[in-house]
Amino acid sequence: MQNQTIVLASRPQGEPSADQFRFETGALPQPAAGQVLLKTRYVSVDPYMRGRMNAGKSYVAPFEVGQPISGGIVAEVVESQHDQLPVGSVVVGNLPWQEYSVSDGAGLTRIPTDKAPISYFLGLLGMPGLTAYFGLLDICQPKAGETVVVSGAAGAVGMVVGQLAKIQGARVIGTAGSDEKVAYLKKLGFDEAINYKTANIAEALAAAAPAGVDCYFDNVGGAITDAVYNNLNKNARIAICGQISMYNATEVPVGPRPEGKLLTTSSLMKGFIVSDYHSRWPEGVARLSEWLAEGKLHAEETITEGFDQIPAAFLGLFKGENTGKAIVKMA
Amino acid sequence: MQNQTIVLASRPQGEPSADQFRFETGALPQPAAGQVLLKTRYVSVDPYMRGRMNAGKSYVAPFEVGQPISGGIVAEVVESQHDQLPVGSVVVGNLPWQEYSVSDGAGLTRIPTDKAPISYFLGLLGMPGLTAYFGLLDICQPKAGETVVVSGAAGAVGMVVGQLAKIQGARVIGTAGSDEKVAYLKKLGFDEAINYKTANIAEALAAAAPAGVDCYFDNVGGAITDAVYNNLNKNARIAICGQISMYNATEVPVGPRPEGKLLTTSSLMKGFIVSDYHSRWPEGVARLSEWLAEGKLHAEETITEGFDQIPAAFLGLFKGENTGKAIVKMA
Repeated sequence: MQNQTIVLASRPQGEPSADQFRFETGALPQPAAGQVLLKTRYVSVDPYMRGRMNAGKSYVAPFEVGQPISGGIVAEVVESQHDQLPVGSVVVGNLPWQEYSVSDGAGLTRIPTDKAPISYFLGLLGMPGLTAYFGLLDICQPKAGETVVVSGAAGAVGMVVGQLAKIQGARVIGTAGSDEKVAYLKKLGFDEAINYKTANIAEALAAAAPAGVDCYFDNVGGAITDAVYNNLNKNARIAICGQISMYNATEVPVGPRPEGKLLTTSSLMKGFIVSDYHSRWPEGVARLSEWLAEGKLHAEETITEGFDQIPAAFLGLFKGENTGKAIVKMA
Repeated sequence: MQNQTIVLASRPQGEPSADQFRFETGALPQPAAGQVLLKTRYVSVDPYMRGRMNAGKSYVAPFEVGQPISGGIVAEVVESQHDQLPVGSVVVGNLPWQEYSVSDGAGLTRIPTDKAPISYFLGLLGMPGLTAYFGLLDICQPKAGETVVVSGAAGAVGMVVGQLAKIQGARVIGTAGSDEKVAYLKKLGFDEAINYKTANIAEALAAAAPAGVDCYFDNVGGAITDAVYNNLNKNARIAICGQISMYNATEVPVGPRPEGKLLTTSSLMKGFIVSDYHSRWPEGVARLSEWLAEGKLHAEETITEGFDQIPAAFLGLFKGENTGKAIVKMA
């Protein structure tokens, strides 16, 4: 039996393409004592991975050229020499883009198979859901009646942020990049949704937030953020979760300076990564699971099939192809 | 007897000039029942007042054209029909730029005359000192051994920030606009001081902060801030107190976007105004007074004399003419 791996072929300059990925075929690995053989079931593709394709220090270590790319994966134990992980166990964790991989279990979390579709542990009940949970509830702290803006609202994180903000009793405005996504957000319960590609974002945001903006959860950056800065209320809170509009920039992005806006409104802005809240992940998963079970949270996935489709699904993130969580299901 | 008043003659476009101020002469006002006649002793000129010269909403109400300018003043009661404020009482508060004024005492604080020079209640023990105290200790929260950068370090707020950061055990880097100010900061105990007008600020800051920047207290904005963004440590804290380099801008200031830097370092940035901490002012004055009495804090004032010198002292703030607190003493 053979095993396919996707390695980083080269580092992108600006927008990445299929050229950055190379498929390699090797022998099926064999687990040693204390190890398991994992069969990949679902592969998560996420915008933050673009940063790992660059060389140099960032908040996650870079991928190495010629080495496997790794990311969030749900996998099943198909051979086991590990006490705690019998055959049939399903785990989630950071694993290489391979059809099969060997692990000693470090960094993997066993997940239930009877609570929710196991792919949800890459989305609503996984990294994106926890990102939404901690960024919104710890940094933005929306109160009932306040106005919350979410950029990238139809993405894996944004769609959870908007729903959590509604649970908190806030008025929620989302931005997204197509009329279909706008319709999806309205269906999901967003009070307002703006197609930033067709609207005049400055005017549309001011119209959608007549009482100003109290909280902003930013996945995108750029012109949407500039529009929010012009509508901040006193003591507004901004969580910087992502800047997908900048990830492929080849020059330092320039824009209106925000410091004066934060100054005159006493507003707070904070960047974060979900690992900042590592010690609180169990709390987050428990709360998200409750709301899911109660029907207060809805999941949405854009699933493509086949190991060979992983690069295309990743590249699609930067073209806005996904609604909700982008996932690749193994055939 | 006559009474001089300075009114706003016109709103500035960009850098203000003497043309914006008009001296008017009127009759000495008479206090009614429940009022006092105040003789102005010291007038505070502060950078934030530039914002009040503009029309339109900001964090403090604008001055009105044709009406007296007002600001921090220490005054003495020279006639009294007020139970709590006998003749000889000294007060601090927001009062019009007049030689004499009448007040019912609302918003005024009586200050001791035997603890410190009464002018200190416009500086170290007043608004600038409290601004330094709350911005540094509440937002930046420096820990022993951390690196703190202060821009406008030789100004009324900055010089207190640097000293408070030293009291907390931090390593302190200040920026200022002349070699004389740099020498003053070194004398005051700053570990490093940079003349941003002659240094390459990006290189100088990186060299002065080899372990990165944990806290940034910003009074200035612009290129100094950009240099700090490039040296942020994980979980850095930035207090936006002022943006004096932008106050006279006639177009929206543009620069490298900071959001990505905050994102990859999980850093926090917060604007504030000292009135956000109004309920804690007594605590702040008490702590600052203690440190002053213990010799751990030093005051510095640039004092000019004469009511007619108030506009020039104010305009001098934007030329960097003051070291420490800029104050006008009545003749």
